[in-house]
Amino acid sequence: MAEMKLPTRAEDFNEWYNQLVLRAELADYAPVRGCMIIRPYGWTLWENIQQALDRRFKATGHVNAAFPMFIPRSFIEKEKHHVEGFAPELAVVTIGGGEVLAEPLVVRPTSETIIGHSWAKWIKSYRDLPILMNLWNSVVRWELRTKLFLRTLEFYWQEGHTAHATAEEAQAETIQMLDIYADFAVNDAAIPVIRGRKSESEKFAGADMTYAIEAIMGDGKALQSGTSHNLGQNFAKAFEIQYLDKEGNLQFCWTTSWGLSTRFIGAIIMVHGDDQGLILPPKLAPFQVVIVPIAKTDEERAAVMEAAGRVRAELVAAQIRVKLDERDGMTPGFKFNDWEMRGVPLRIEIGPKDVAKNTVVLARRDKPGKEGKSFVSQQGIVAAVAEMLETIQKALYDRALAFREANTWEPKDYEEFKKAVEKGFANAYWCGSERCEQSIKDETKATMRCIPLDQTPSEGRCIFCGQPAKEKAIFAKAY
Amino acid sequence: MAEMKLPTRAEDFNEWYNQLVLRAELADYAPVRGCMIIRPYGWTLWENIQQALDRRFKATGHVNAAFPMFIPRSFIEKEKHHVEGFAPELAVVTIGGGEVLAEPLVVRPTSETIIGHSWAKWIKSYRDLPILMNLWNSVVRWELRTKLFLRTLEFYWQEGHTAHATAEEAQAETIQMLDIYADFAVNDAAIPVIRGRKSESEKFAGADMTYAIEAIMGDGKALQSGTSHNLGQNFAKAFEIQYLDKEGNLQFCWTTSWGLSTRFIGAIIMVHGDDQGLILPPKLAPFQVVIVPIAKTDEERAAVMEAAGRVRAELVAAQIRVKLDERDGMTPGFKFNDWEMRGVPLRIEIGPKDVAKNTVVLARRDKPGKEGKSFVSQQGIVAAVAEMLETIQKALYDRALAFREANTWEPKDYEEFKKAVEKGFANAYWCGSERCEQSIKDETKATMRCIPLDQTPSEGRCIFCGQPAKEKAIFAKAY
Repeated sequence: MAEMKLPTRAEDFNEWYNQLVLRAELADYAPVRGCMIIRPYGWTLWENIQQALDRRFKATGHVNAAFPMFIPRSFIEKEKHHVEGFAPELAVVTIGGGEVLAEPLVVRPTSETIIGHSWAKWIKSYRDLPILMNLWNSVVRWELRTKLFLRTLEFYWQEGHTAHATAEEAQAETIQMLDIYADFAVNDAAIPVIRGRKSESEKFAGADMTYAIEAIMGDGKALQSGTSHNLGQNFAKAFEIQYLDKEGNLQFCWTTSWGLSTRFIGAIIMVHGDDQGLILPPKLAPFQVVIVPIAKTDEERAAVMEAAGRVRAELVAAQIRVKLDERDGMTPGFKFNDWEMRGVPLRIEIGPKDVAKNTVVLARRDKPGKEGKSFVSQQGIVAAVAEMLETIQKALYDRALAFREANTWEPKDYEEFKKAVEKGFANAYWCGSERCEQSIKDETKATMRCIPLDQTPSEGRCIFCGQPAKEKAIFAKAY
Repeated sequence: MAEMKLPTRAEDFNEWYNQLVLRAELADYAPVRGCMIIRPYGWTLWENIQQALDRRFKATGHVNAAFPMFIPRSFIEKEKHHVEGFAPELAVVTIGGGEVLAEPLVVRPTSETIIGHSWAKWIKSYRDLPILMNLWNSVVRWELRTKLFLRTLEFYWQEGHTAHATAEEAQAETIQMLDIYADFAVNDAAIPVIRGRKSESEKFAGADMTYAIEAIMGDGKALQSGTSHNLGQNFAKAFEIQYLDKEGNLQFCWTTSWGLSTRFIGAIIMVHGDDQGLILPPKLAPFQVVIVPIAKTDEERAAVMEAAGRVRAELVAAQIRVKLDERDGMTPGFKFNDWEMRGVPLRIEIGPKDVAKNTVVLARRDKPGKEGKSFVSQQGIVAAVAEMLETIQKALYDRALAFREANTWEPKDYEEFKKAVEKGFANAYWCGSERCEQSIKDETKATMRCIPLDQTPSEGRCIFCGQPAKEKAIFAKAY
């Protein structure tokens, strides 16, 4: 629990993160290297993320399905960029039911190949298109350096897969899903994101073009928080995904894929958290409100618990996710710290004086001390809480946006650029050459995060080589 | 789709099932032997099952979490019955990231062991109990003879795991979850089930006692449709799951586990389906209603589509899951067959005459032909549809119950018993000896399905050996 203080973020951001994840009971290390156990508090957060995304996917016509976790090794080899990207990271099942398998099975690192194989069977004509499908599952990539939520051998995600009759439709789908991720990040997670294109070197293994949403973390580093890939006809050709068009000609499909993973929980932690622990955006928080009763005598306790129970019932009836902390043998102060560590956006304190005055204390997680406290009547508590949750949701977004703006630089030259990427994002002209990108990475450890889609056309000179450039790109150190 | 007729159930129940699963687009064979692809229609059915169960789990205080799919081989070996039961069925990862692993990893066949390992860390005192946890995931058991939904190498399920301070609490939890499965089966899936105890030979590997819900399929065979295990202190001792009680003494916990899988979809198919295809209970059906517009001329089509769109909108607003079949180039008759194959409980037909009279035709899936048709006004369509869906839900349950009653026998002697298990369930006295159970199995291929919990105490003689018996048991051939 919250007996010991966390290291501050300024002291040791990395250790602050690791301890917070464990002590907020979001996740724990598994007995297998690099795997994680997502504890109920963390998993409920993920369930809320799932619902927020799934609602958007279904509203745009997507349906969920399930494909096997095992893929024949030979499938991975059919698309040449795909195998280059994923072969080094595979977990391989070689024994089943006590027998050595004739063909080893790969535990899916992603499902483009096995889906391609099925679509080749299912899709006959233009009438079968588009196929708009999504899977909620876990995948395995054999990472060497792991960190809870951010990079684990097994992680949970959704992988969307679609097939279309034309290149234009596939591109529109790719951008639509990028926009859905951005909308979710901004409106549900209170995280401002930059929508952009990835460079050739950073794109998905097998894609024509990868788009991503990028966010700035509390230490100035970037986190890629969701990706959307236009796969062109690469997988369609590798797996013979074809359809008969209206004129009776056989055509290859155009496919896309897009994913958002439990890594996003890492973004929520690192964008909103403070030195006391986690701060969760109200729309995604497992508990939006915690009620802490305060009483010394049995008589006080009876009156306080009666009021607390009544307030809880009203909030539950209004669909507000509320926890009444009835634990014995713990001081209110201990409970305050505990729920602050766990990031509950709003605390309601009810003591004997509140009972007498028919009030409660509201304490905002995002504004410590007196500044975040207010006294409200028990009458109209639902409206007051609902309004306060909205206020907190907006305040978290505004603060995160202000932080990004304060930590995004427009360097005039490479010297300024090098300083900028030590602190945050550098938004700079880039000529588009892989050599400049690689040199910057070698010299500064900053990578090209994305070429923002929202930029007004302009011209300038590449921050590295000085050659003419037509676009700006975001560079930063990244998770 | 539905161009060719299915074999009838009387002709070939097995082939009827296999073809139905493929043609209703519930699932498909995967490229890996014994694995399945659950297609969107089948997965939506599973999502509806998930929601119906998850609601019940949460209402009884359970929370969801996620544990890794990989378990160290050594964990499986810690509980002696567990390893005997599961060792022959394991899939083993021996290579990760291109390297041979020092300790092979097992793909979870079930998660008692890895959960036990974590609980030993997490649980300190009686204050931490009970732990009421559930996982939605997939598990792998290397089965040799597989069948879509009923027995696959990888299958989807929920596995509940709980830890308690006392034996009494663990037993109460075991029965509570059995009751939740029965309530779900009866009230959501319209499947009558028998709640009962399993014999020693049929219980879960590592349990003190296994309870199950058993249902009769359309061919008279039994399907175990959900199980709840009282694990006693077996896993607590193997993994040292201990707590300090109020007096400060170290005690072993008492644990339970319980699961219901995609196998249940097999039960829905085999209980309700008929020779035309699937029949889905309205509470779980992906589409509760399909609207088929009928029009010959463009003018008719415009009027019919306007009415169909209006009816759809009203049903959607009332949270009824509805599909408007707008496909071109298919006859109404083709569409009728197609949706009958896919088991949509209620069809709404709208043609030019209906538009003129402001009516629609309602056609029940469970009553073919004229008997199942009625004409209702477009005014009040929502109430008429909602009522009809309830009627269908109840009719499916009643029919399934009548079928079970007609196919359950109370044999007077072993000769009658042998005839009974050729046709359905035999409810017979059993002395409790494993030898009688095994002899019956060897001679008749029928297994002891369960000792029903709901039986009035009585005495008789074992149907096999004639020795005194105090309980009756259900025997049947089983999937």
